[in-house]
Amino acid sequence: MTTIFSDIEGNSSSAPAIDYTALGSDIMERVETLALHTEQTGIMTRTYLTAAHRGAASQIAVWMREAGMTVRCDASGNVIGRYEGTDPSSAILMTGSHFDTVRNGGKYDGPLGILLPIGCIAGWSRQGRRFPFPIEVVAFCEEEGVRFKAPLLGSRAIAGTFDNRVLDNVDEDGVTMREAMLAEGLDPAQLPCAAMSKGSIAAYLEVHIEQGPVLLEENRALGVVTAISGSSRFMLELKGVAGHAGTVPMTLRHDAAMACAEVALYIEQRCSASPGLVGTVGQFNVPDGAGNVIPGRAVMSIDIRAGADALRSDAVDDIQAKITHICTRRGIHANINKTYEAVSVSCADWLQQRLTDSMQRNGCTPRSLPSGAGHDGMIIATIAPIAMLFVRCGNGGISHNPGETMSAEDAALASRVFVDFVENFSVPTTQ
Amino acid sequence: MTTIFSDIEGNSSSAPAIDYTALGSDIMERVETLALHTEQTGIMTRTYLTAAHRGAASQIAVWMREAGMTVRCDASGNVIGRYEGTDPSSAILMTGSHFDTVRNGGKYDGPLGILLPIGCIAGWSRQGRRFPFPIEVVAFCEEEGVRFKAPLLGSRAIAGTFDNRVLDNVDEDGVTMREAMLAEGLDPAQLPCAAMSKGSIAAYLEVHIEQGPVLLEENRALGVVTAISGSSRFMLELKGVAGHAGTVPMTLRHDAAMACAEVALYIEQRCSASPGLVGTVGQFNVPDGAGNVIPGRAVMSIDIRAGADALRSDAVDDIQAKITHICTRRGIHANINKTYEAVSVSCADWLQQRLTDSMQRNGCTPRSLPSGAGHDGMIIATIAPIAMLFVRCGNGGISHNPGETMSAEDAALASRVFVDFVENFSVPTTQ
Repeated sequence: MTTIFSDIEGNSSSAPAIDYTALGSDIMERVETLALHTEQTGIMTRTYLTAAHRGAASQIAVWMREAGMTVRCDASGNVIGRYEGTDPSSAILMTGSHFDTVRNGGKYDGPLGILLPIGCIAGWSRQGRRFPFPIEVVAFCEEEGVRFKAPLLGSRAIAGTFDNRVLDNVDEDGVTMREAMLAEGLDPAQLPCAAMSKGSIAAYLEVHIEQGPVLLEENRALGVVTAISGSSRFMLELKGVAGHAGTVPMTLRHDAAMACAEVALYIEQRCSASPGLVGTVGQFNVPDGAGNVIPGRAVMSIDIRAGADALRSDAVDDIQAKITHICTRRGIHANINKTYEAVSVSCADWLQQRLTDSMQRNGCTPRSLPSGAGHDGMIIATIAPIAMLFVRCGNGGISHNPGETMSAEDAALASRVFVDFVENFSVPTTQ
Repeated sequence: MTTIFSDIEGNSSSAPAIDYTALGSDIMERVETLALHTEQTGIMTRTYLTAAHRGAASQIAVWMREAGMTVRCDASGNVIGRYEGTDPSSAILMTGSHFDTVRNGGKYDGPLGILLPIGCIAGWSRQGRRFPFPIEVVAFCEEEGVRFKAPLLGSRAIAGTFDNRVLDNVDEDGVTMREAMLAEGLDPAQLPCAAMSKGSIAAYLEVHIEQGPVLLEENRALGVVTAISGSSRFMLELKGVAGHAGTVPMTLRHDAAMACAEVALYIEQRCSASPGLVGTVGQFNVPDGAGNVIPGRAVMSIDIRAGADALRSDAVDDIQAKITHICTRRGIHANINKTYEAVSVSCADWLQQRLTDSMQRNGCTPRSLPSGAGHDGMIIATIAPIAMLFVRCGNGGISHNPGETMSAEDAALASRVFVDFVENFSVPTTQ
């Protein structure tokens, strides 16, 4: 560990400038340290309310205190560090991200957005610098929804939208969430106390790896998120007529797999026509298929996302119309079952503008992009204006995977932009 | 049972004309009677060397004798009825089909081609009519290859191409074919004696249900087979790059399932362009696919068949070139593995012509079509010229299925054409 994180008390008079190169390296080191808190050595798995999860929470709390923050833990398990402002009664600037992971996931998805602000605050602490508003760094306890099949639990607790029914969800071993919370010393009855009121948060800014290849492909380090995409998900089951692969002429077939293939390619074509729109067929299967039998049945999943809801709903309408058209022409019966729908969550224009200004002041060409993945900000947006700063992923943009990477240089640049954003931030008089 | 099959001895002087309406009905009745010999009541399953198989063989032998034939059984289990000719030393006219079935199959696939000739011969027997050539009706013991995963065993025994290695194949209970044969009183050492010499068979004519919808769709009862299609089969594995369904823009994807879909639709389009060519993707799967993950891997089967080998090989070449083209454009790696290849087997032109003439004399508009499914004739073709008469299937042309049907009227018409063919047949002086 370099000096940037240590020995911060008592040096405020010297007001040392933040060494961003060292900060970037230190963030990368802390990511590695935090990754040691895993359920299985050598693999990054840290799900809600496990020993690894508790260990990570403790380590984060230590780093928050070392950075000059007071630390509290709410009833859901969120770890919240507060860097007091000159006006303690002011609405806060909230930042943070989650410290749980998917199974066999990456080290940066979540932790970057916790460790970067802690590092910056440590720098201000060394300078003795305070802002008119308090800064709270939230290490959200649960975002991925792995263990109890319910995501975004930490942000829901803070937004006051925690659904108590999920307390009865069980993990793979049959343990309920309620039992697991009590075993970790968390009292589900106190969950309502974790909620923060609308107006108490002036803004929420989350720093997160992009989890995609856009910035990498464009050779950019940073991007400003316009919105967290809404999504529509379906399961499509097509039923045709099974037949002998040798004896039924092409013109007399009602092949369910070919109909699925045509639908899939239409989805690809339709979504490729609009930037910001993506469509995915992640599942495609001919149940009990045999090489010499014309498929009588095929199933596929459809996942459509866009930052703009109209873009998504127009695409969904077109795809549904095309399914009808394809199936009518082919003599195929279609069952379409909607499995999920979420509207998009916009990032606040004024916060996007401030982030863009900060990027420009630090030599970054502005680049805006939607977030195709969900984030805690989706939930916090119900009680506060939100913004997100994306940091470039390496390795083709891969995420939720051990191959997830990012660079110390990008961590340093993101820190510069974060610091610039905070130093130029002021709580709006009206929101 | 009507009189057509009974009391045939001693009536030759009256030379009664064959009552085809009664014959058609009787064939349908005998199909039902034979179907009682099944491994599971209510379901048509009769695999090689089972008790049901033995029972069916005995019943067929009884009917052959009643029709005026002498009956022998060869070492493979074929039941062969001989209707002697005026010149016993003449090359024979062979006809027949198989009496084994697939599991949970149909009643007509095979038996029609045994019971129809027996019925016609019964008619000639009643008339005391003999031909210059002997007629042999072969009830082939095994064609489907279900029990021991080796098909066409009966015809291979007669063609002298029985591969003794399959004697060691085991069924699901671990019983070898050799053990099963010995238990049924068949001596594998005698298999070579089942072989018939080239030249001893003047022609082979098999009557069989179409097992497809072509004749049904065209409202025709009968068709003349041009060839038994050759086939090329492949497994195609495509590898792209897995990714997050929300974060990877369409333009940056390497989606293995979309590439498979494009290949599948090309196969459909390419094979639809040439009558007589069929292409089937019976298996299509994204292994471990998830709705929110861009498929990194997809697998599919490819089955290409045509009566003309050049038609098939041209299509295979085009499909392989297209796979390369699609995968190069999409950044996908392709593994193509050929799993099976068989050349087509032509029906003899002169026999097709004689069958066509017989159809025309009986009011049937000629219709030629390839057989996409394999038949015993494929094997007999190595020692004799072959022909096949297809009879319309009902119920959409479905076969290898309990829903397999045909009509007594079509059985009657096929009998007329068969009788006409035989009565006008003569052994060629040179072949």
